[in-house]
Amino acid sequence: MSSKGDLTRRQIIAKSMQLFSVKGYFNTSIADIVKAAGLTKGGLYGHFRNKEEIWYAVYEECGRVWKSVVFEGVREIADPLARIARLIENSLKNYLGGRVFEGGCFLLNSLVDLAGQSPNMSHHVLKGFQGFSKLIHVWLEEAEEKGLLREGLNLVEIANFLVISLNGAAPLFAASKDPAVWRQTMGQLNYYLQTLRKEN
Amino acid sequence: MSSKGDLTRRQIIAKSMQLFSVKGYFNTSIADIVKAAGLTKGGLYGHFRNKEEIWYAVYEECGRVWKSVVFEGVREIADPLARIARLIENSLKNYLGGRVFEGGCFLLNSLVDLAGQSPNMSHHVLKGFQGFSKLIHVWLEEAEEKGLLREGLNLVEIANFLVISLNGAAPLFAASKDPAVWRQTMGQLNYYLQTLRKEN
Repeated sequence: MSSKGDLTRRQIIAKSMQLFSVKGYFNTSIADIVKAAGLTKGGLYGHFRNKEEIWYAVYEECGRVWKSVVFEGVREIADPLARIARLIENSLKNYLGGRVFEGGCFLLNSLVDLAGQSPNMSHHVLKGFQGFSKLIHVWLEEAEEKGLLREGLNLVEIANFLVISLNGAAPLFAASKDPAVWRQTMGQLNYYLQTLRKEN
Repeated sequence: MSSKGDLTRRQIIAKSMQLFSVKGYFNTSIADIVKAAGLTKGGLYGHFRNKEEIWYAVYEECGRVWKSVVFEGVREIADPLARIARLIENSLKNYLGGRVFEGGCFLLNSLVDLAGQSPNMSHHVLKGFQGFSKLIHVWLEEAEEKGLLREGLNLVEIANFLVISLNGAAPLFAASKDPAVWRQTMGQLNYYLQTLRKEN
């Protein structure tokens, strides 16, 4: 692909991301995207066959951005519980509080937008969240093996609960723009995480 | 209003609730509502001036349904922490797990759908969630006065966190239809609530 073609493709993805985030997928038309990207319909169809294909490219790009923010400085932390705490801080303070996407979390918004209307697309988003939860689960298992956790914890349940709570902060922050939403969620998730640690 | 008129009005609200829940507010047209309710445009405009007015009526009706499920048997519980536990159970097992609204939680979906597009309407939904959090806060204060809580807790933060976590379960359950979502959230929120109790 020529570098000009590549630039156009990235422009389509960037403008679509903005439109999908704020207006929603179904409410955004190909005509909206063509207009926002300053293209002709033919220019757009040279890069994507349809709106669904654009959505998958936008999702991939959002996932890349999300990962770069949420995993920043995480993997080099040796203590798996401190690693999870950093993941929580990155997710709430830097990703959500940093207002990385206009209109809130594109990934969560997509889930709400697509559930009940497009099983394939909402399943795709769901798989992303499940992967995130699975990774936290692996780190909790590592914490357990290192003897850092109290006895008898349900690690799958804890991992899912963390993802659920992080997701819960997104729409309330998007609507209120009140930093208390992510700050308070961070405060309580940190407290919760500490209660899992074995007392010394 | 005649009882026939009242019936038509309720029919418009019921059909709009379904359409807004599944398709979203902006993606639902007056023509969609007219068709789903089996009316003429004139028949609809005899009851509502515009789509926004219908949304407010739908929101009110959803709020009524939500309250009837979420507060069932709650107020008669003397221990404020047990009262909050029942609220959590009702919200997750009976409201979310009971699939009261098609397409997930209408209230949360509205927040995602409207944030960034209609400040007035999303503010209206947000006020509902804030009222819910305020009530939990009052019950936590009651628990504190009764000496049931550990020292030094941030009760506003705890109340908001509970609402945030409950909200986080809604989109993941709507997309996955997996009861583990509400069950695991209930398990961990109950555990969390117990950690707030003063040890005897």
